[in-house]
Amino acid sequence: MRRLTGIALFAPLLLGGATAFPTPDSILASAPASDWRALDPAETLYMDIPGGRVVILLAPGFAPKTVANIKALAQEKYFDDSAIVRSQDNYVVQWSQEDKARKAAKAKLKGFAEFERPASPAFTRLPDHDTYAPQTGFDGAFPAGSDGKSEWLLHCYGMVGAGRDNAPDSGSGVELYAVTGQAPRQLDRNIALVGRVAQGMELLSSLPRGGGAQGAYMGFYRSPSQYTKISAIHLASDLPAGERLKLQYLKTDSASFKAYVEARRNRHNDWFVRAAGAIDACNIPLPVRTVPK
Amino acid sequence: MRRLTGIALFAPLLLGGATAFPTPDSILASAPASDWRALDPAETLYMDIPGGRVVILLAPGFAPKTVANIKALAQEKYFDDSAIVRSQDNYVVQWSQEDKARKAAKAKLKGFAEFERPASPAFTRLPDHDTYAPQTGFDGAFPAGSDGKSEWLLHCYGMVGAGRDNAPDSGSGVELYAVTGQAPRQLDRNIALVGRVAQGMELLSSLPRGGGAQGAYMGFYRSPSQYTKISAIHLASDLPAGERLKLQYLKTDSASFKAYVEARRNRHNDWFVRAAGAIDACNIPLPVRTVPK
Repeated sequence: MRRLTGIALFAPLLLGGATAFPTPDSILASAPASDWRALDPAETLYMDIPGGRVVILLAPGFAPKTVANIKALAQEKYFDDSAIVRSQDNYVVQWSQEDKARKAAKAKLKGFAEFERPASPAFTRLPDHDTYAPQTGFDGAFPAGSDGKSEWLLHCYGMVGAGRDNAPDSGSGVELYAVTGQAPRQLDRNIALVGRVAQGMELLSSLPRGGGAQGAYMGFYRSPSQYTKISAIHLASDLPAGERLKLQYLKTDSASFKAYVEARRNRHNDWFVRAAGAIDACNIPLPVRTVPK
Repeated sequence: MRRLTGIALFAPLLLGGATAFPTPDSILASAPASDWRALDPAETLYMDIPGGRVVILLAPGFAPKTVANIKALAQEKYFDDSAIVRSQDNYVVQWSQEDKARKAAKAKLKGFAEFERPASPAFTRLPDHDTYAPQTGFDGAFPAGSDGKSEWLLHCYGMVGAGRDNAPDSGSGVELYAVTGQAPRQLDRNIALVGRVAQGMELLSSLPRGGGAQGAYMGFYRSPSQYTKISAIHLASDLPAGERLKLQYLKTDSASFKAYVEARRNRHNDWFVRAAGAIDACNIPLPVRTVPK
């Protein structure tokens, strides 16, 4: 697997060397500035942990009430000095609610069952069949499913949701999770997704798994000494402009994104002997970059 | 997400409390001993790293020549005192070949393009549509795809493969990788899968990602000081019987496995408001247990 993802200089494998196919990397490098969109500071969270900063882009278009809760909680410093309390292998990490006082303080905060919304013309459909949803594609920065009437976010790697109890409307945003493994798509439309990690996902995915060697206790750490401290979760717009990260994502309704998806559906380079000819929505990471100087 | 995977005591949500649906856990707990199969020590590797032991079950039925190479390499201690040299987020970890002397020693070892084999009656098909393969299911301990003529292993989480260069038959087994993220199914039939991690996957998936904060360099660590040392890879049958782990996996052609899949396709418990009604082969972890006393 020395060159498992391919290397920069490609000759077309199937067409005899006459024309170079664009690669995902070359498409991103040549995408016009107008195909990139800045992360809205008013909808972006910075979660600071010892390993660094995790950037979360919120999805108010899909979970407006839960996102409003989360922003208010961040602004009142509810998440500051909290902790990541769970890391279950091939599933999720989860944070806050690590002690009784914290839980009690927000026990009555109203939650919402924001699991789907009416279908939107902003939904850009992917061409391939999905195992779980009638249609999948993207809407803004997010992978989404649709049945033509309703639209919902997909539990892909890096998506962030609001934990809940058995009552569907019990997820208020006081407890959040991020997907760290194979997309647990059975959760779609069962729990509110509220955004996605845009940068720093590797800081969450590499945390030690909880529950001991056998992964028991659903990955919850057995001792607070195993927690990862969250020093703060800031709303980016609450920081001085000079302290904000200048990040952009590739617009999912752009020509560049369409070409990027196609280049991932069918890889043409010296390494691949067979192009897949299809792609799962959760196999399309959102391209995010620092604004070029 | 306090009870995101459900808790042990379930009442049926849709049928009014009259009958309890079996859950994945209850099915495993009641599976007869005859539905479990011991990991064959002659086809099982123990990879020892500082975090503990990673158990890999080989797939000689799919990659016989590459597996024979790997077993011979283990027996001649080729992997001892080697290292994990790559961890790319949401993709793979990769090991050995960390220095020039090691590479040079096996530069001429013959590789094989064992990417698929003739379809086998041992293939047990899953009922749902897959994005990448005409049919998916299981064969022995492994997730597999089929087009009715050929059969191949799937790049699901925890699967282990033999790295290769551009030449399709250049993967000899001197360099191995394990999938640590969303199934990179575009690799299916492009590179030889040789087995799967049966236990200890969390030791690989939680390694720090290489390449710095931006995940550059395809996750390769920039400095040998970042490597994870592999003290040894033993073939289990080369250890005294008393030192072997007594592990079993659930036979994928058993009634218990069929019920387990169905319980994961449609979750019925107090937490879920909607059953998915379908499942991706890569969302079905192989149940592995220590033999009960």
